[in-house]
Amino acid sequence: MSKQMQCHGGQMGIFGCRFSLYPMDSDFVPIILGALEKTDTSAVWSASDALSTVYRGGLDNVVDAVAALLLNAWREDCHMALEGQFSEGCPGDVTADLPKSLDPSCPNRESIGEIHFPVSCKLALYPMGTKDYMPLIMQVKDMAEEHGLRLNHIHYATRVDGDVQQVFSYLEAVCKLSREHASHYALHFTISMNSPTEE
Amino acid sequence: MSKQMQCHGGQMGIFGCRFSLYPMDSDFVPIILGALEKTDTSAVWSASDALSTVYRGGLDNVVDAVAALLLNAWREDCHMALEGQFSEGCPGDVTADLPKSLDPSCPNRESIGEIHFPVSCKLALYPMGTKDYMPLIMQVKDMAEEHGLRLNHIHYATRVDGDVQQVFSYLEAVCKLSREHASHYALHFTISMNSPTEE
Repeated sequence: MSKQMQCHGGQMGIFGCRFSLYPMDSDFVPIILGALEKTDTSAVWSASDALSTVYRGGLDNVVDAVAALLLNAWREDCHMALEGQFSEGCPGDVTADLPKSLDPSCPNRESIGEIHFPVSCKLALYPMGTKDYMPLIMQVKDMAEEHGLRLNHIHYATRVDGDVQQVFSYLEAVCKLSREHASHYALHFTISMNSPTEE
Repeated sequence: MSKQMQCHGGQMGIFGCRFSLYPMDSDFVPIILGALEKTDTSAVWSASDALSTVYRGGLDNVVDAVAALLLNAWREDCHMALEGQFSEGCPGDVTADLPKSLDPSCPNRESIGEIHFPVSCKLALYPMGTKDYMPLIMQVKDMAEEHGLRLNHIHYATRVDGDVQQVFSYLEAVCKLSREHASHYALHFTISMNSPTEE
């Protein structure tokens, strides 16, 4: 992280996602690298280390790239999970490590928009710097069913089940609502595909 | 979650962890189930679904059980990640789904205390309901080196590398410090073992 450009005050508009993909498969390396390579990252700034990858840029472009990463990774009969955190407005954030533009371009949308499969997702939203954060969290839960998702309340998180496109559309809507209510927020999510666990 | 016992006001002392174990191995089912079965959960309340498992109880006992789960899962040459969120004091929490006692007993400590291997961990702390949350986050970063861990600042998280016992000791210390400063906090962490990625 470029310390010299630290702005000591998060700017709304600089959005990011740190994520990790976990294919429960002994052949995990080509699955992860293949998905990363297949994803068009021209509209985001990205960096990877041994634990995770980060995409930074405008909200629409980051969500587009993360959704593409998951959709490009998916394969029938392979149990996989994507763990991520969307974040915007952290007071410690910097105005460096950015793509050329924050304007929406969503270069992956066309190639991924018609891919559908069921997923399970758990999410936890943290609106920071305000005493009055519970109403937003409750509103976000109510929004799940408006997005066509099945909702379950679980300890420390919310669980939603539905089509992968609806889940990403919901997560994006949660971020867009959160930025109106909090100068800094984080949304942690985990999306699971092809779990062998029967419920 | 037992709605009828919702207390609408988180109580400090009721601590929990929702976690998922991801063995990057086609034989992941016996690794996950074996680790869950080998872990002594007599001092926590637990529940599993297709996405994750939750342990609830006193802080010491929950950390003891989560550490044991990871140490029981570990095997040489298997890349694995444990994603978790420690949480305490959520206003929406309930006084149900608890073990018989919140008093520390740590039944796994003896069997796991002498197991050592290197891990990488990323963590993100969210002290809720206060405008003045950045000083605690900065203090927590400083604590990493006091625990013998190598510290790296990364976007949206802090990365620490070191021995697995030191990492759990550090995460426990972060929670114990956070409960002094915030009535509700969450600590998200991901611990990675045996990553094939060279850095």
